[in-house]
Formats: sequence, C-alpha cells, structure tokens
Amino acid sequence: MAKRTVYNGLVSNEQLGQVVTLKGWVQKRRDHGGVIFIDLRDREGIVQIVFNPEISKEAWEIADKCRSEYVIEITGTVRNRDAEVINPKMKTGEFEVMATEITVLNTAKTPPFTIEDDQIIGDEIRMKYRYLDLRRPKMTKNIKLRNDTTKAIRHYLDDQDFLDIETPYLGKSTPEGARDYLVPSRVHAGHFYALPQSPQIFKQLLMNAGFDRYYQIVRCFRDEDLRGDRQPEFTQVDIETTFLSTEEIQEHTEALIAKVMKDVKGIEVTLPFPRMTYDDAMARYGSDKPDTRFDMELIDISETVKDVEFKVFQMALETGGVVKALNAKGAANNYSRKDMDQLGQYVSQFGAKGLAWLKVEEDGLKGPIAKFITEATEDIIKVTNAEVGDLLMFGADKANVVAAALGAIRSRMGKELGLIDESKFNFLWVTDWPQFEYDEEAGRYVSAHHPFTMPKAADIPLLDTDPAAVYAEAYDIVLNGYELGGGSLRIHTRDLQEKVFETLGFSKEEMEEQFGFLLEALDYGFPPHGGIALGLDRFAMLLAGEENIREVIAFPKNGKAVDPMSAAPSTVSPLQLFELNIDVTAIEE
Amino acid sequence: MAKRTVYNGLVSNEQLGQVVTLKGWVQKRRDHGGVIFIDLRDREGIVQIVFNPEISKEAWEIADKCRSEYVIEITGTVRNRDAEVINPKMKTGEFEVMATEITVLNTAKTPPFTIEDDQIIGDEIRMKYRYLDLRRPKMTKNIKLRNDTTKAIRHYLDDQDFLDIETPYLGKSTPEGARDYLVPSRVHAGHFYALPQSPQIFKQLLMNAGFDRYYQIVRCFRDEDLRGDRQPEFTQVDIETTFLSTEEIQEHTEALIAKVMKDVKGIEVTLPFPRMTYDDAMARYGSDKPDTRFDMELIDISETVKDVEFKVFQMALETGGVVKALNAKGAANNYSRKDMDQLGQYVSQFGAKGLAWLKVEEDGLKGPIAKFITEATEDIIKVTNAEVGDLLMFGADKANVVAAALGAIRSRMGKELGLIDESKFNFLWVTDWPQFEYDEEAGRYVSAHHPFTMPKAADIPLLDTDPAAVYAEAYDIVLNGYELGGGSLRIHTRDLQEKVFETLGFSKEEMEEQFGFLLEALDYGFPPHGGIALGLDRFAMLLAGEENIREVIAFPKNGKAVDPMSAAPSTVSPLQLFELNIDVTAIEE
Repeated sequence: MAKRTVYNGLVSNEQLGQVVTLKGWVQKRRDHGGVIFIDLRDREGIVQIVFNPEISKEAWEIADKCRSEYVIEITGTVRNRDAEVINPKMKTGEFEVMATEITVLNTAKTPPFTIEDDQIIGDEIRMKYRYLDLRRPKMTKNIKLRNDTTKAIRHYLDDQDFLDIETPYLGKSTPEGARDYLVPSRVHAGHFYALPQSPQIFKQLLMNAGFDRYYQIVRCFRDEDLRGDRQPEFTQVDIETTFLSTEEIQEHTEALIAKVMKDVKGIEVTLPFPRMTYDDAMARYGSDKPDTRFDMELIDISETVKDVEFKVFQMALETGGVVKALNAKGAANNYSRKDMDQLGQYVSQFGAKGLAWLKVEEDGLKGPIAKFITEATEDIIKVTNAEVGDLLMFGADKANVVAAALGAIRSRMGKELGLIDESKFNFLWVTDWPQFEYDEEAGRYVSAHHPFTMPKAADIPLLDTDPAAVYAEAYDIVLNGYELGGGSLRIHTRDLQEKVFETLGFSKEEMEEQFGFLLEALDYGFPPHGGIALGLDRFAMLLAGEENIREVIAFPKNGKAVDPMSAAPSTVSPLQLFELNIDVTAIEE
Repeated sequence: MAKRTVYNGLVSNEQLGQVVTLKGWVQKRRDHGGVIFIDLRDREGIVQIVFNPEISKEAWEIADKCRSEYVIEITGTVRNRDAEVINPKMKTGEFEVMATEITVLNTAKTPPFTIEDDQIIGDEIRMKYRYLDLRRPKMTKNIKLRNDTTKAIRHYLDDQDFLDIETPYLGKSTPEGARDYLVPSRVHAGHFYALPQSPQIFKQLLMNAGFDRYYQIVRCFRDEDLRGDRQPEFTQVDIETTFLSTEEIQEHTEALIAKVMKDVKGIEVTLPFPRMTYDDAMARYGSDKPDTRFDMELIDISETVKDVEFKVFQMALETGGVVKALNAKGAANNYSRKDMDQLGQYVSQFGAKGLAWLKVEEDGLKGPIAKFITEATEDIIKVTNAEVGDLLMFGADKANVVAAALGAIRSRMGKELGLIDESKFNFLWVTDWPQFEYDEEAGRYVSAHHPFTMPKAADIPLLDTDPAAVYAEAYDIVLNGYELGGGSLRIHTRDLQEKVFETLGFSKEEMEEQFGFLLEALDYGFPPHGGIALGLDRFAMLLAGEENIREVIAFPKNGKAVDPMSAAPSTVSPLQLFELNIDVTAIEE
C-alpha cells in the first residue's frame, strides 16, 4: 500500500495539479459515456474519481467491477472540474481526480441499507449493523462532534491545572441512589463489586488527599428502566475542587462550556449565564430545568381568583394549594375542544385532576369554566395579559402538582406551537435547591441531590426541626430544558454528615456499615470542597441537534439494554457460574 | 473564604513583598522562642508560615492550637528568609510568609501514620487510609506524573487527528483469552454482560465504520490471579488505524512515546527504537521482553560442546535441544556453592533440570561439571569470552526451557550484580512474533497475541500444514524488560479469519456463535487496519521509577482484589440478588 496523500473530503486547491494517493469506500459508481465516475468516501467526506479508459484501460476495467462499499486505493491527478459540472453542494465539488491506478483493498456485499443520510432505517437494523450506520455522514459527524467536545473540555481543564485521575470501576454497592450493576467476585464467594453510579465518594477523597482540582471523563452505570435519553452506561464529566466557593465553581463551569461552544459550534456565549433559584424555576416554569428559549410562563392567579366561587379553585386554595394560569398566545384556534380534553388526560399523569381552560374571544372568555369565573373575568384577562385568540389554561392543586402539570403543558406547547428558536443554546443555572425531597412511598426524606451535599449554613439548625425547609449549596446547569449537569458544595465535617444521614433515616449502624470509611476520612483534615458533573452524552446530543443520546454513542444499547450487534447480554457457561459461586434462578428464553 | 493567591509549593520571587492568601495542611508546627512556624503543604509543595505574637496575637493564638493535618487558610506577607535559615533543599526555601490572619477550615485527629516519604508503612494500612497515603509527597508526585503522561499521550494523538471514541463497558462474554468479569442482567434473566478485557473487536469495527484513526484511554478487566504488577482493572492506551503499515504504526507509537519522555521526564529519546525479532530476543536474551540496559547475553555453545561426553549436554543435543551459556563477568566470588545450589532450585520452576556452572580461575575452569568438559575447556573459554573471575552458567534442554531458565537467571543477576543503569530508558521493538503457541494442557494451538492478528502473507499457506511455523504481523514495544504494549495488523477478510479460527480449533458453529457478528462485518468492505495498545499503569510505573503499579493508581486493589478502604467487594441484599435472578452458592465469612 502507498501512503495516503490527503483525506478525500479535504482535497482542495493545495493538491491541484498534483499526483495523489487516496483511499476509501465506493459511495457511488456510475458510467457516463464510457467513463466511470466513483464517489470515494472517507471520514472527512467525498471526492470524485474519474476513470477514463483512454488514460488507463487497466484501471478502468477494475473500476468497472467496483461496487458500493468496496474499499479501494487510487492514484491520480487532481484537476478542476469543468465549470458546468462543478457541484457547489460538495466541499470538494470543484475538483476531480483523474485516476491512473486503482487497487481493490477489499470487496463488499450489498449492505442491508445504503450509506446515506435522510433514510428511514429501523433502529434495530441500524444497531445490528452499527459499523455501517456509523459510515453515514450524519453519524460520522456526530461521533466527531463528540470527540471535539471531549477535546475542548480536556484542554480547558488541563490548562486550569485540573488533574485527570482515574477512580475504580469495581467499587462497593450502596443502597442510596439508583439500582447498582453488580459484579460477582470469584475470589470472595458471595461477595460483589458494584459498578459506579458516579465516582462521588472517590472524588471527594481525592480532595481529602490534597489534589485540589480533579477531573475525569468517566463511565457511570445505573440499572434503571430505560427511556429515550437513558442508557445503562453513560459518560460524565466529573469535576471536583477544593477551597472554591459555589460562584467560583460556576465560573469554571461557564468558562469550560464557553470553550466547548466556541471550539465545537463556533458560538461565543455570553457570560455569566443567568441564574434562577429552584423555587423561582418551579414557580415560573413549572420545571427544575426550564427551557428559557420561549416565554409562556406560569402566572400565579391565586390572589385574583380567591373570591371566585368556582369549587375547583376554592378547594385548591383552601387546602394550601395554588391556582396558576398559562397563556398560550394566539393558540386558541390551534386546539379544539377534543384536543383540550386530551390535554386534560395528559396532565393526569402528573397528578392533576384535570385542565381547566378558556379561549379569549371578541366578546370575552369562552369555555367550560367561563360561567364559574365571571366575576373575575376582567382581572384574569389583565393578570394573564390575555388578548383575543389566546388560550388560557389553569391548574389548581398543591403547588408541586400545578407546577408539574402546567410545566409539562408549557414544554409540549412550546414544541407544538413552534415557539422554540432551535438555533438558540440557552444555558441557565438553577440554584438553591432543597436539601431533601419527601418520598411518600418510602415515608422518609431522600436527598434531592445526594447525601453528601452541603446544606446552606443558615439552614443547618432546621435539620432537626424542619428538614423540608433546608436548602442546599446545590446548583444545576440547564441547557434548553435539559439538565446538563449538577453540582454542590459537599459536607466536610463528620458531625454534619452524620446529622444528614440521620435525617435520611440512617441508623448509626447503617451509616457505619455503608459509609464508615467516608465518616472516618472526615476526621483527618478534610478540606472544604465542591464540584459538578456534566452529562457528556446529553451535551453532545444537544450540540449535535439530536433528540436521543444513542445518536452520539458509537455502540449504544437498545431500549431493552441489549446490543443487537454482539448479542450482549448472553448466557454464559456453567463453569463460569461455578467459578463465581452463583446459580441462575431463571433464564429468559 | 478568600481566594488563594498561589499554591504553597510555588511561592517565589513573584510574590515577594506581597500580601498573599494561602491554604493547605499543617505539615509541621514548631515553636522557636515564642514564634510559631508552620510548614503549610498542598499538592505543589510546602512553604513556611511565621506567626509572631507581636504582629498578631490573635493569629498566633490560633496557630498555637493547630496540629498536624489541620486545614488552614492564612493571609500574610511573603519575605526573604534570613540568609542563615535559607533551606536549599526546599523549593520555597528562600521565602517565608509573615502571617497576620489565620482561619482553621477543619481540624484533624492524629493520623495513623505521618505524612512523610521514606517511612515504612504496611500496605494494608496505606490502602485503608489511602487518602492520607496519597498526601505523601511521593504519592502526590506519582499521581501527577500519571496525569502528565496521560496528557502528553492525548495531546499527541489529538494533534495527529486520532478520534477519542468510547466503547461499551457492558459487553459480551467470549471464552477466548483470560477470565471475564461478569455482570448479571436484571432485564434478561440468566443473561450476563462481560466487562471488556480490551475493546479489541469494537476498535476494529470503528475502523470498519471508517473513523480511520481511533484512540481511547480505557479501563480493561481481567479476573485472573493477581501478581505484583497486575490489578483486576487496568488502563490501556488503545490505538487503531486504517490503511497504515506496521512501520507506520510503529512510527506513530515512537513519536507518541518520544513526546511522553520529553514532556514528563525531559528526556530526548533517539528514534527509531531498535528492532529485534522475537526469535532473536529469545535466542539472545531468553526473553520476549529483554532488558537491554545490560549485556550478558545467552551464548549458544551447542556446536562447541557437541563432542563433549557430558551426558546432560549430549541428551539435550540428541533430542533436538540446545546448550547455552551465560557469562556473569567477574561474578565468581559473588556466588557461593550454596548460592549456586539455590539458583539451581530457582530455575527448576522454568522446567530446567538444574543449573550447570563453572568459575574461571587462574588455572582453568572449576566447578562440579569441570571434569566432564575438559576436552572443550579452551573452546568454551573462547566462545564465552571468559576471563579469570567470571562465573559461567549452562542450560541444556529444549530451546524454550533453556531460554526461560537462562533468561530468568540473567534478569535476576542483572539486578543482583548491579549491572543495570537505572537512569536508562531502553525502548525496543520485538517484532515477527509467532502466530500461535501450542498449549500442551489444552492440546491445541492458542493465539500468541489474539485471534484477529494478521499472519505474515508468505506464511498463510502454512496455516493448514504447519501452524507452528506461521509468523504474525505482530510487534511488542518493550521498556527496560517490561512489555509496555503490543500490537499487530488485523485480519480484514472473512476467509482468513475463519481459517485462523479453524486452526485454533473452533467449529463453524462456535465461531458463528461467538464471533458471527465480526465475521459478518468482514463482508461489508472491512478496510486493512492495525493498531497497538499500551499499558498506561506500567508506563507510569516505569516513568515514576516504581516497581508496582499500585504506586501509580489512586485507589488500587490489594493482592486479594479487595479495596481495604471501602471494603469492596461486599455482600449485597437478598432483594438485589432476587432482582438479578441469581443465588449465591457459597459465602465467604
């Protein structure tokens, strides 16, 4: 094999008139008046190769036998195309290569789908032949974009003296958080490692060891039921720092994101990013990760309707709830009565009993609840800034139910009504999270972030008396309605860590058994520290303009956590199980 | 907290006369005539802080209460030390900081060992308190050196257009190679994922997908019995390329290593590295990873002694074996008769029946076998270049037994006799590996590298007739007697891959079951490709001058694959096992 001169997709004026050697895959072969044209593809793009029998009969004959996806090497001279056949849509569209030699490096059967974008190919077939799917220009570009993202992140952190330190994948199973993937130990019968859900404790211990600034781009594992943007394994940009304040950690995160946006998308973002408290985000957007690319905020009308004799509103207000409205500007005609019934159904999954609504017409508010709120019509119109053609929707319930229901409606209508400027990248800090959430099912408080999160100093006395009122030094970074990452300051003293474990319902024995080594570490000069973790898959997905993280993962699992290509997971031999001291109690056929 | 001005270990002329804020751990506190001196430590080193009660009584009082490993923040002015107290051994030894303020950020109990180098601390206690062990300057330096190594590697590969692409950790178990770590699937009862021993097949498929140049710094897992430089999980610099020759891949590897040596050690290595065939390495050094920092090569004396009537030599030669000698120059007096008996014992583990030896004295060769070889004495002296005071040792057996035994003696004596220049970094390519090894126990051929390795083109016909004579397009990179990495060109056609599987004893069904997806991928224009994988832990270990990879891993496992700090692996709850559809058949107490 000769040395490649340049990637096909990068042939340019630099090679004009020169003899080059190119390698790649046959994208297309066609015969025009006895001359063969091959579009030769590699990771950087395509260039047109011309085989003229008058130049080399031998090369022409080989080219004539080439089929799609054959791997070939050619030698020839780069020249300008004739003006009338210049292809302005192609990066190399001004050029072609007059081939004098060709070698077939490998042949190919006809692939199960053609290697082109904008085709409808079933997910399973794409995944089974992932190596062919990845040859499609869009997928190649996505994987390269992910590489560019990783590179920009690393370069920023390297420049800022962060140390890239690896933490174990074979760790300890702890019941806090999601379900662990387990790994049976052969050497220690009946014992198991767990794959990390995140290297949280290890990164804190690295701060205790004095490394000051740590990062790792690291795989994490959660054995949870899968959704669109969830995979059994995912990649986290894991960052931890010592002696920095919340604001300083946020500044680093912003500078890192700015570098990614610049390097990967060529976009200069404005710093600092806007900040919004968790309470504000829930109140205004009904979401802890609001998409701020469009308005349509939730409007609290509790005060406005407090005297209205509409039972639904009254009951909500009397039981400590709220009444809120959404105004979908000019959308009255976009939604029929039937659509509105369906939306009523839709919000029931968030615990709402229904969706009250009104349309604003020339002669006032119309709709099923119009007659109940007549005395407040004027005020409602005023406070919701309603105009003819608007669609008003109402939620009346506990604050969190109203937020969830109207927040979901807002997100949905934002898309349905085309309110979103897809070219925007709206970053937002959501700050001042609650320390705990009350888990109705478990009948106890659980951590809103994780049990190592530092409560706000002023709220520490409330741990004993009113855990629900305790706020945390915690912050999420949100991009276009997605949680891009989250972080916090961490607890660095034993007393406070034990107090938080207690609030979470741990007995002394349980905390000792599960986190004794961390508690002990807190005794030996653990420094103040904090950090953040960003979801790399999700970040790359949003940068690529995709809607599923599978599109930016080279070899993802399907919705059943299976790799259809290699057929993992699979059964294993009895010897393997014997050596691991385990039996299987059931086998799926 | 105020912002840190500079790391303690980096205080320099730049801060002279300035007011600075420093943070870190109390390395030492001492009182000299009512003035308190604190050595303040961080990851970059130590600086001396002075608390004079005449400058701030308040700060002095707090400083007086500080103990080792307290975490403090101080503010003060950097000044030159008086000439007589300059400490030339300390990077910041010319400076001290006159403190006006101090804040204790956290206290510390007395640690189980002091945070200093050159202490003898038990391995288990080091690992249990790893966060304290890592505070020791040597360990901090090792982890930073590893970060520097990783960074140099990434920057080289980024600059050369390699794409960093992640491959799955939850993969498929295959019986080839070492024992897999398994991960039970919850969703698919009785099915298991396997953690990768290396991303070999995935990286080949990335070449099939057209990514052209791939790298990944990736964790790999092998459930094998542990040795000094083995861990259950280890890190590999995984590289794969398309369309490149063996020589081009080696050139990239050399340039990458040269960058690491330059960036991490400040050493300019000479390129290209020397090359030696596998056969030569075995013949001359008795090792496939020779330490070329010293000579003492194996000398073939089969011809010299072919007529000597010494039964041991004769039997070896008559059964197709060899007789080889080692000359330990000037070492005759270093080894007593008893030492030589012990060496005889030592080589028995390599299958040798014993170790014949002679000492060269003024009046000829002396030793147990002297009387048997009298007629060849002159020739042996000549061919081994023996001089008075030398120690000659002989191996007579099958070639591989002689190589193993004398190779081991050579390595051992190289260390014992101080023949090795520890400042040297001797890189060496060992090329032209055999394709297969015969596994006596299994009664079949096994891959010397792995089953995807490309045989030398000229040897392909021998696959049917004489597999032992087939050489591979495979190469190892060796550093100072350690295998630093290995690579090869890979098979890219189905016929040849199936033929190699056949030679390895696979039935059609077995190859289809285990590697069917790879075989199918070979049908669709799989390009010529090859690569290399380097052991990052080992590379960092050698760069750090350590003898165990644990010293360059932040949180390693001990010799029983246990993390003594977090106590992983551990038992898990019955619910976890139930959800995974497994039972444990035995539990270690």
